Amino acid sequence: MTDAPPAGGPGDLARLTALIREFSRERDWEQFHDPKSLVLALVGEVGELAELVQWLPAGDAVAHFADPDRHRRAGEEIADVLVYLLRLADVLGVDVLQATLDKQAEARRRFPVDDVHGVAPRKE
Amino acid sequence: MTDAPPAGGPGDLARLTALIREFSRERDWEQFHDPKSLVLALVGEVGELAELVQWLPAGDAVAHFADPDRHRRAGEEIADVLVYLLRLADVLGVDVLQATLDKQAEARRRFPVDDVHGVAPRKE
Amino acid sequence: MTDAPPAGGPGDLARLTALIREFSRERDWEQFHDPKSLVLALVGEVGELAELVQWLPAGDAVAHFADPDRHRRAGEEIADVLVYLLRLADVLGVDVLQATLDKQAEARRRFPVDDVHGVAPRKE
Amino acid sequence: MTDAPPAGGPGDLARLTALIREFSRERDWEQFHDPKSLVLALVGEVGELAELVQWLPAGDAVAHFADPDRHRRAGEEIADVLVYLLRLADVLGVDVLQATLDKQAEARRRFPVDDVHGVAPRKE
Repeated sequence: MTDAPPAGGPGDLARLTALIREFSRERDWEQFHDPKSLVLALVGEVGELAELVQWLPAGDAVAHFADPDRHRRAGEEIADVLVYLLRLADVLGVDVLQATLDKQAEARRRFPVDDVHGVAPRKE
Repeated sequence: MTDAPPAGGPGDLARLTALIREFSRERDWEQFHDPKSLVLALVGEVGELAELVQWLPAGDAVAHFADPDRHRRAGEEIADVLVYLLRLADVLGVDVLQATLDKQAEARRRFPVDDVHGVAPRKE
Repeated sequence: MTDAPPAGGPGDLARLTALIREFSRERDWEQFHDPKSLVLALVGEVGELAELVQWLPAGDAVAHFADPDRHRRAGEEIADVLVYLLRLADVLGVDVLQATLDKQAEARRRFPVDDVHGVAPRKE
Repeated sequence: MTDAPPAGGPGDLARLTALIREFSRERDWEQFHDPKSLVLALVGEVGELAELVQWLPAGDAVAHFADPDRHRRAGEEIADVLVYLLRLADVLGVDVLQATLDKQAEARRRFPVDDVHGVAPRKE
């Protein structure tokens, strides 16, 4: 186990990825981490995130999570999703940072500000 | 849009979060980004990730994504999930890096290596 | 394929289950229908359902789907989810009708009208 | 509350739908059942279904659920998904039976047996 926790800084995604990989390896859990199983585990955590917000009035949701316990709870569920997402990327050899920068660059080209200002990109 | 990649300074997660926030603000899309809508958008992207793996033989999935086009495609879908996850954390004021480090520390306490070595933590 | 709709006889759920099983068998697709793959396929369809509603103002969503094309589209996505849910139940030998009646009976015991009237059962 | 539970037979989807609507109305929970909230609740239940299968070896999953307790548990989670799916269809005025029959008919046209025999329809 890494003694020093990663501090924020360039490379924190790579460091989280390494931390989670080490956690899995120490427990001999890498054998369970094929892509299909990891996507299912991700779905389980997304389900818990959905449960936190499902019955909230849409306009009150941010205020609802101002409560410290609920705020911490939301952080935990978001973290659980991130853990499986980074584990999946690791198993597939995906560079998450680069992939996300690329996707953002593409989104900027695809949705020019003047075309989509204030308009939700609905799929119909 | 930030042109130069940061040297030192904010971490990857903070940097991506700021980039996505800026993207949303420029398009006046922040109005759509309440927590329930963002979780639903996340679910949409998780669905696309699931579609990439659903019919693969479990043991062949990693090899399947060695193909460059499939590898790029997987990276794009993982990035799409991360974008909405970071946007949600931003809207809720969650520090994703800290929340994930805390969750990993808790997981290490909760699943001692000697107790769980090689045993998948099934929910039944 | 069954041409005539049943008069009396098996219920809708049993009939749909048989129809979907036959569809799978004719295409030799039963080999792909292990439980994990079916749950992933279900997730893919739930993602498409989420995409239909994600950016709608919460209060306008029902009116939004009054439009005939959107109404048909919503029906198609709901049907896609049902197809994989029934296929999964079939593969696991679950009697969906009975399981749902049992679950409703339990819900009526667990949430007595006087205790929960007008109160959303939030998970916190 | 309906005294007589629906027996299997034509109309069992309509009868389940009515039972769930009545359950919601008695508790004054219809106010929470806008489409976005219902899709999120569905996602929560799909997450629980995913958790049941996520770490199983793909080939052992059906055998795993032969155990009576696990079989019952799988039935409960499938039922929970169906409940929210039928509630959503009800709120949107979708005839689930007809929509599913239509979708199956379309799938039969779209995937002719001779073209797709034994070939999983991968999305790439």
